Amino acid sequence: MLKLYSFGPGANSLKPLLTLYEKGLEFEGIRLNPATFEHHSDWYKEINPRGQVPALVDDSYPGGRVITESTVICEYLEDKYPTAVKLRPDDYADRADMRVWTKWVDEYFCWCVSTIGWSRMVSQMAKAISAEEFEERVKAIPIPEQQVKWRRARDGFPQDLLDEEMRKIAVSVRRLDDHLADNEWLAGGMYSLADICNYAIAGGMQLGFSELVNANDTPHLLRWIEQIAARPAVKRMYAEVPMESLKPQD
Amino acid sequence: MLKLYSFGPGANSLKPLLTLYEKGLEFEGIRLNPATFEHHSDWYKEINPRGQVPALVDDSYPGGRVITESTVICEYLEDKYPTAVKLRPDDYADRADMRVWTKWVDEYFCWCVSTIGWSRMVSQMAKAISAEEFEERVKAIPIPEQQVKWRRARDGFPQDLLDEEMRKIAVSVRRLDDHLADNEWLAGGMYSLADICNYAIAGGMQLGFSELVNANDTPHLLRWIEQIAARPAVKRMYAEVPMESLKPQD
Repeated sequence: MLKLYSFGPGANSLKPLLTLYEKGLEFEGIRLNPATFEHHSDWYKEINPRGQVPALVDDSYPGGRVITESTVICEYLEDKYPTAVKLRPDDYADRADMRVWTKWVDEYFCWCVSTIGWSRMVSQMAKAISAEEFEERVKAIPIPEQQVKWRRARDGFPQDLLDEEMRKIAVSVRRLDDHLADNEWLAGGMYSLADICNYAIAGGMQLGFSELVNANDTPHLLRWIEQIAARPAVKRMYAEVPMESLKPQD
Repeated sequence: MLKLYSFGPGANSLKPLLTLYEKGLEFEGIRLNPATFEHHSDWYKEINPRGQVPALVDDSYPGGRVITESTVICEYLEDKYPTAVKLRPDDYADRADMRVWTKWVDEYFCWCVSTIGWSRMVSQMAKAISAEEFEERVKAIPIPEQQVKWRRARDGFPQDLLDEEMRKIAVSVRRLDDHLADNEWLAGGMYSLADICNYAIAGGMQLGFSELVNANDTPHLLRWIEQIAARPAVKRMYAEVPMESLKPQD
């Protein structure tokens, strides 16, 4: 059995969720609560010492084998569990194109969107608790850069950083829209992990970044977002996996 | 025929060079001169519009197919040109481990080492030309972040950035040494792309960062570096592919 430890369907957690649903693979979903910093809890750091979701545990290995990093998990599912639904092009050059797109998400696109998302939303979580509790929580975070990010979520991100990230977001949506003007999908003429990994970040931007992603400025990106949102597997996933709340009690 | 556009054997250019030699694949090597900013020239941007090396051109596709991004090129060579020498573990969970390591190089390790390398060496190139010529060169760089990096190479990197990058380098070599204390190779018990991609960055650190990488502090990392340097394919590659000079006339 496969177990997926994740947050609700958004950002990096969305990538393996969409891949699992698209391939129709059975799995047990274990949803962590970011508002209680559950991904930094001792029990979860036993599974992923870096304290990050998603993580996949594959019990077909004795004792279970942990696979981390959302993009790596997606390729693992394609490698290990081939299905009639293929999410990687057969042609290897097309597959390389796919990897350039998933790599770009992980190295550029996800970071700028993440910083703005944190300044808008994670900051609410970081500010909702006492200073003492916050310090305790930060101590439990294994990655120093993530500690800095949480502190900024509470104290405020530097404005020049926010401006630079907004610039990068504008570059990113332009890049996607330009490519999607001439291509139905991002790589290899088929719906692939390139689309899934980019959709995980771009999917809600017509709402959260409507000044950049809209029918006038990025019609092709919008078409692609709607096309993915209409896929049966995507609709089924959203119907079955609850969105997360930012409140500790949920 | 395969054509590899690269700098000399270092950093990202080293990854496909080592992969090609290890697999014994024939290829034509086209070496660009970084000191004349040849990777930002119009002829090269026709091949890779992002103005980055390495790039692989595979003439088995009509008109030639361009594969970019060093790590993606390495996986492409494994996908498309299987050889008796395998550089990816057969087991898919081991292969996922390999990808976590190559991803870590691309997202973390290479950047901190690169910044220090630029502040020490690329700065010499950036300062060797007149202000007018420098501005012309910068204009030809297609990626805004690379323009910023070139300006910093000429004007100096902020000290707090250099300090932070040195901290990350210390974290990185610690991480490698700890892992290599219990493992001959980084992933799957075999020499793989995880080793090649990490060696591309770590390989010379016993010289350039001897205060961090040395027999006392990182004996396992040093053992691994020496083990890779002694491989016949690695020795052959260094014997055949000239190191680059930082001087424009070369």
